Amino acid sequence: MQREVSQAVIKRLPRYYRYLEHLRNNGISKVSSGRLAEMLDITASQVRQDFANFGGFGQQGYGYDVEKLLKEFSSIIGLDSEHSVIIIGAGNMGRALSGYRGFANDGFSVKALFDLKDGEPVNGIPIYAIDTLESFLADNQIDIAVIATQGKIAHEVACLVVELGVKSIWNFAPVDLEVASDVVVENISMSESLYVLSYKTKQAREQIIDIKE
Amino acid sequence: MQREVSQAVIKRLPRYYRYLEHLRNNGISKVSSGRLAEMLDITASQVRQDFANFGGFGQQGYGYDVEKLLKEFSSIIGLDSEHSVIIIGAGNMGRALSGYRGFANDGFSVKALFDLKDGEPVNGIPIYAIDTLESFLADNQIDIAVIATQGKIAHEVACLVVELGVKSIWNFAPVDLEVASDVVVENISMSESLYVLSYKTKQAREQIIDIKE
Repeated sequence: MQREVSQAVIKRLPRYYRYLEHLRNNGISKVSSGRLAEMLDITASQVRQDFANFGGFGQQGYGYDVEKLLKEFSSIIGLDSEHSVIIIGAGNMGRALSGYRGFANDGFSVKALFDLKDGEPVNGIPIYAIDTLESFLADNQIDIAVIATQGKIAHEVACLVVELGVKSIWNFAPVDLEVASDVVVENISMSESLYVLSYKTKQAREQIIDIKE
Repeated sequence: MQREVSQAVIKRLPRYYRYLEHLRNNGISKVSSGRLAEMLDITASQVRQDFANFGGFGQQGYGYDVEKLLKEFSSIIGLDSEHSVIIIGAGNMGRALSGYRGFANDGFSVKALFDLKDGEPVNGIPIYAIDTLESFLADNQIDIAVIATQGKIAHEVACLVVELGVKSIWNFAPVDLEVASDVVVENISMSESLYVLSYKTKQAREQIIDIKE
């Protein structure tokens, strides 16, 4: 597999995977690059170029085998092995995330929530005090730490989990995290998304007013 | 104000706003385009170009007035007026969102949650049965509907709120919504973000194995 895959291709991987699942769930066993292109709103040649990053996946003329493609994408994305997850912050967001179905569906196993103090389990997942994190991580191999704290402590929390050896962070706190370059960080930027929604809503409204005037 | 602002500029608006807030909260009253550029990881000339979309905001030579810029961005993003919000789906995610501090901080007022049946208030916000949505929307001006349902009913729910006159949707369900072109939709794509995190984690791991071998 080639190493340097562009950000644009990486962002399309989930969409390929989701669409292929949809096809399989509807009993469709073959799909053309043209049909995939249509669903992703790109060109068929772009689809073939994307696939070339990962070795091509077989003959395009006869269409791709949906089941085989799904397996390939599952492996590329890393969904074919289990990932252990902890969630830091057991407020509303942390609790919501502990019940996020996407985790279990795709082999992500949430082992524990951490907060200032320990507490009653949520969705069957224990809540431990943050001062036990070090010994927990010494005893448990954890792949991903989800940060669901308030913004003002998120950076401190990120530094702590990285220091304790976690290499991947899924960040729900509204801050940009600065961590070591060998740590993978993905941000869910809620406030940015809300501001963009607000901006577009205002624009759409002003256009309606323009038309009415 | 010019109408056709590029997607890239729109996506930077929240980051300008957040950074300006940070400056104000630290008592800083003037900022140069160079400093703003540094924070946003773009060039100073890009900052001035961005600002030109909205009239320029005054003389660059002496630096921009932070308080004045904040007011301008607040108005551009639409944070200077109140937005009324409803949340459809009172599961974990809907409940978490009802307590999202970003709403109250920026003038978004959550009026109600809707689910199959009514229920006890969450974070002081009532939960109403979805079959009362039509009469609720007849009596209340709602700007934004947040969709926090499961994927399989999200499209149906989106069509319903649009039919009942809501023009902006913040979508947390893991599906692409197809709605009328005059409706604004912003998606929080959790599974896509998780897949990208998973992919990058796998790549990072394989590189470590490469180095070790």
